[in-house]
Amino acid sequence: MKKIDGGVCAATGFKASGVYAVIKNNPSGKFDLALLMSDLPADTAAVFTTNQVKAAPVLVSIENLQKTGGKSSAVILNSKNANACVSDGYTNAKLECDFVSEHTGVNPDEVLVCSTGVIGQSLAIDKIKAAIPELVKKLSADGNSDAATAIMTTDTVKKEYAVEFEIDGKVCKIGGMAKGSGMIAPNMATTINVITTDVKIAPDLLRTALSDVTEKTYNCLYIDGDMSTNDTVIIMANGLAKNPLIHKINDNFEKFKNALFHVMKNLTIMLAKDGEGASKLLTANVKNAPSFEVGRAVAKTVIGSDLLKCAMFGEDANWGRILCAIGYAPADIEIAPIEVSLVSKRGEILVCKNGEGLEFSEENASEILSEDEIEININLNQGSEAATAWGCDLTYDYVKINGDYRS
Amino acid sequence: MKKIDGGVCAATGFKASGVYAVIKNNPSGKFDLALLMSDLPADTAAVFTTNQVKAAPVLVSIENLQKTGGKSSAVILNSKNANACVSDGYTNAKLECDFVSEHTGVNPDEVLVCSTGVIGQSLAIDKIKAAIPELVKKLSADGNSDAATAIMTTDTVKKEYAVEFEIDGKVCKIGGMAKGSGMIAPNMATTINVITTDVKIAPDLLRTALSDVTEKTYNCLYIDGDMSTNDTVIIMANGLAKNPLIHKINDNFEKFKNALFHVMKNLTIMLAKDGEGASKLLTANVKNAPSFEVGRAVAKTVIGSDLLKCAMFGEDANWGRILCAIGYAPADIEIAPIEVSLVSKRGEILVCKNGEGLEFSEENASEILSEDEIEININLNQGSEAATAWGCDLTYDYVKINGDYRS
Repeated sequence: MKKIDGGVCAATGFKASGVYAVIKNNPSGKFDLALLMSDLPADTAAVFTTNQVKAAPVLVSIENLQKTGGKSSAVILNSKNANACVSDGYTNAKLECDFVSEHTGVNPDEVLVCSTGVIGQSLAIDKIKAAIPELVKKLSADGNSDAATAIMTTDTVKKEYAVEFEIDGKVCKIGGMAKGSGMIAPNMATTINVITTDVKIAPDLLRTALSDVTEKTYNCLYIDGDMSTNDTVIIMANGLAKNPLIHKINDNFEKFKNALFHVMKNLTIMLAKDGEGASKLLTANVKNAPSFEVGRAVAKTVIGSDLLKCAMFGEDANWGRILCAIGYAPADIEIAPIEVSLVSKRGEILVCKNGEGLEFSEENASEILSEDEIEININLNQGSEAATAWGCDLTYDYVKINGDYRS
Repeated sequence: MKKIDGGVCAATGFKASGVYAVIKNNPSGKFDLALLMSDLPADTAAVFTTNQVKAAPVLVSIENLQKTGGKSSAVILNSKNANACVSDGYTNAKLECDFVSEHTGVNPDEVLVCSTGVIGQSLAIDKIKAAIPELVKKLSADGNSDAATAIMTTDTVKKEYAVEFEIDGKVCKIGGMAKGSGMIAPNMATTINVITTDVKIAPDLLRTALSDVTEKTYNCLYIDGDMSTNDTVIIMANGLAKNPLIHKINDNFEKFKNALFHVMKNLTIMLAKDGEGASKLLTANVKNAPSFEVGRAVAKTVIGSDLLKCAMFGEDANWGRILCAIGYAPADIEIAPIEVSLVSKRGEILVCKNGEGLEFSEENASEILSEDEIEININLNQGSEAATAWGCDLTYDYVKINGDYRS
């Protein structure tokens, strides 16, 4: 397996595009509308927000996948407006499918819809309608970057990742794009992620792989504890790599799942690193946990502590807050055997052993914490399972960005 | 019932004091060690942190209350050091009981211990030992303010409240002190609260009242989602009001519980208002909920949303974030009937009806949100129960305070 260029267009038979549809005035002219197309209807699995307030595009995408039995040909995506909690939300999301259908010929039920942005304002559907011809015209196998740009909201960088690997001599590819970067919470920690692959795989195994990998990637991401109304992860598999169909859990399935993990893990890290206002990527690695679930609960609780996030921003080795957060993790654990160390490329420092603090050089700790990627290594010493969670520090800029998001 | 002056010394037979013991150097000389004494051993009920990492003073207080069957005569309290996660923690907490016993004559098992401050540093027990004689000498019925000052950490104001009421012609009093103001989370949202009363009440009813009132006050407070290792609420009842013993749930019990609610609710509001870095007190009032539990879950989830907290700091009427938070509250609710309005002393504005946004004047909304006390009124329209939760906005200062807490 190797990393390759490109995002959602890396796999054979996918095209994408992005335009500035003026969904909201933006002097920079940043793209705000994207389209993704597969040359063939693709088997599609998806995971959606568990928020009881689901945005209209989520409801329409769920409905369409039910109607088609899990096939899709296109995804239309916009930023600047979540199309959530508005009376014309459903109608507008359906209209988006119709517009795409009219200009591409695909069945409107094979169009999925993703929106992200402000909640509670009507979508500028006329602007979207007007932009569709150009959006379709621009579709190309190099359009991944335009599409990834169009879904950015408060993101400071676009997020794409792709890999290539072989199955029985056939070159296969998986690529994806994602957007963050606030309102990112423990359950389905993301807003919008679209993954494409040319691998030929049975629909039930595609779902299994997506669900397994989501548990260890997006569901291990924690920015601010808020769960969006629009969270969506979609994977489309069009089979154009022409590998022998993966129809059972075997080596080929594991190869596929491993490649998918690689793509989704890297997107997760990009999301964490670009969390709203973030200045540091934080990674909590828990080892020797009694189970993966306990390990993940500990890792996510630590990474989600506002107090720890502030301490990391301040480059203060306040390990007491780490132990405190471990103590209120929703898991039954023994405190006495726990060891904690802080790591960056400048070194590692053990700050806690046997559940208690150690003397350590504050100078050395400050130097380690001055880096912009910090690992918090937690050895629970009560089992053999491991888990990792990703997050970021809590900074002045997070407050600034979110104090005035709508303007 | 009427509000009266004083805090933990308002009730008959309680004395308190505070001194600067130099638990940590502090150029301002702010008190950091407090003592509270009852003239008679008092029936005592307490609620402690559910964090699996419990500080040594919590363990010693639990142990002592078990030994005495729920009696206590004194509480020693310090700020600047949590006495948590250190190998000499238990020994030092026990020594504090011994010191108080030596200088006051009370049984060491009748001494409770509360500490708050940095986790993971050994307590300066020699400094505490040296300060005890002065601390005991200063005990007085006017010492409440000194004690309330001594337990402050990042608090900007001391927190005391007291009321007076009558039971069968006897004047009774309840007073208390509390400290915040960070690491305050949903389950037992506090760090240290001590309530004293001269009411004569059976121990089991004292426990019932404390537990019921805690559910509707401290457990409805949310500052930052972090749960401390040291959370403690203690109520001491010495019976010196000489009212006929409250020994069953009757009108007198309700009168007592109502007065206790009044004290604890006002302390809760003080804690919320003085949340770390807070510039605004936020109150979420939920009405017409199917149950108190559902109402409280909604109120606390809304008040706990970092995104909403930032929006309130920015005085931005981003009601979409309120609805989003309602949607991920851990409760089963219908979204369609929900109404939301924002209220301050400048007026009220309805921003959401039938689960969807309304057109409203941004100018009017900004004016309402410019106040420093904001109420978020949520009408669930699906029942008849109500609940309230208190919190504060998320500001630059929260990040600043917590980026460098240990220094």
